[in-house]
Amino acid sequence: MWMDLLAVPVKRPKGWYLSLMAPNTKGPAFAWLDPSRLYCNSQALTDCVSDLLSPFQGNDIDLVAGIDAMGFILGASVATTLGKGFLAIRKAGHLCVATKNEKYSDYTSRDKLMEVRLDVLKPGVRVLLVDQWIETGGTMKAAIQLVEKLGATVVGVAAVAIENTPGGKWIKDNYKFSHCVPEELQCQIDRKFLESFKSFKS
Amino acid sequence: MWMDLLAVPVKRPKGWYLSLMAPNTKGPAFAWLDPSRLYCNSQALTDCVSDLLSPFQGNDIDLVAGIDAMGFILGASVATTLGKGFLAIRKAGHLCVATKNEKYSDYTSRDKLMEVRLDVLKPGVRVLLVDQWIETGGTMKAAIQLVEKLGATVVGVAAVAIENTPGGKWIKDNYKFSHCVPEELQCQIDRKFLESFKSFKS
Repeated sequence: MWMDLLAVPVKRPKGWYLSLMAPNTKGPAFAWLDPSRLYCNSQALTDCVSDLLSPFQGNDIDLVAGIDAMGFILGASVATTLGKGFLAIRKAGHLCVATKNEKYSDYTSRDKLMEVRLDVLKPGVRVLLVDQWIETGGTMKAAIQLVEKLGATVVGVAAVAIENTPGGKWIKDNYKFSHCVPEELQCQIDRKFLESFKSFKS
Repeated sequence: MWMDLLAVPVKRPKGWYLSLMAPNTKGPAFAWLDPSRLYCNSQALTDCVSDLLSPFQGNDIDLVAGIDAMGFILGASVATTLGKGFLAIRKAGHLCVATKNEKYSDYTSRDKLMEVRLDVLKPGVRVLLVDQWIETGGTMKAAIQLVEKLGATVVGVAAVAIENTPGGKWIKDNYKFSHCVPEELQCQIDRKFLESFKSFKS
């Protein structure tokens, strides 16, 4: 049984809010899990953001950048919690101002473009990159490249989960990172083994 | 001249951060203004969210709902500031769980669909709806209908600006609302008279 989504449980073990994520009910054309359900619970959102920020407590961060579209939610919440500004890294073709673009392949394996405005990132600006979920890592790698090609510095990368795909591992090997998945559950994220989330929920 | 985007000005008259918005440089196929530039400045984001929340200080709010995609940023910042959860109202076809859909026409005048998950909104849940900008009002009207058809209550509607289009006026006439545009500048929003933003900037 799902708990009442907006209620706050008495006990909140590490990663408790992951049990609020909703499994796919629409078949293989869709993502396997919907993490956005956890944002509906205020305590879950607070704890999730707190967990993501925990490894970066000693870091100077000037700006939080979130990736279109679901990374906007967690990114804006992280920025607001930190008291920092928020930069949108967007799917190309939307911004009405001058942008830099970068190619990427997301989990659908199609070639796409991401864009960022030119008038914010520059040498000296320290950026924390946030997305909802890192699967292939292609989207996040393009975002990293946009930040770095404009001369700014990637302080780190944060997401609810970072799968141990080649791209996910590349991020973990090369950047400071944070995610919300306790070590003993990481294998379930990597295997997309939904059943195990059910046991985690009980 | 743009001020250094991340700097906080000494004086912050009402709506000061509107001068951080960037005018269109790409022609008529794009939006006339990019409000997302203001989110990059931490004080601008804080003041913008504070202005949006000001009329709702006496209201009980259970949940903040933001509209795909740019409404996710402001909505998540509002939710985090309030200490409430955040619900994503999405362009249809993305969520991997059961949804309710609603037709709308946005500023491009094409028919589109928005969707929301079924397991959050219910009678008794009081929702503050947030989007970046309300132009025709079509997107926000569809979001209002999704919330109400699922039995939840719209406490109000918040956006950086609400144009006095027929749809914008319908929202203002029927719901409590907030926006960030000082009264003496509203005519410039309605007329999309970019030049006047330049004088506001000096």
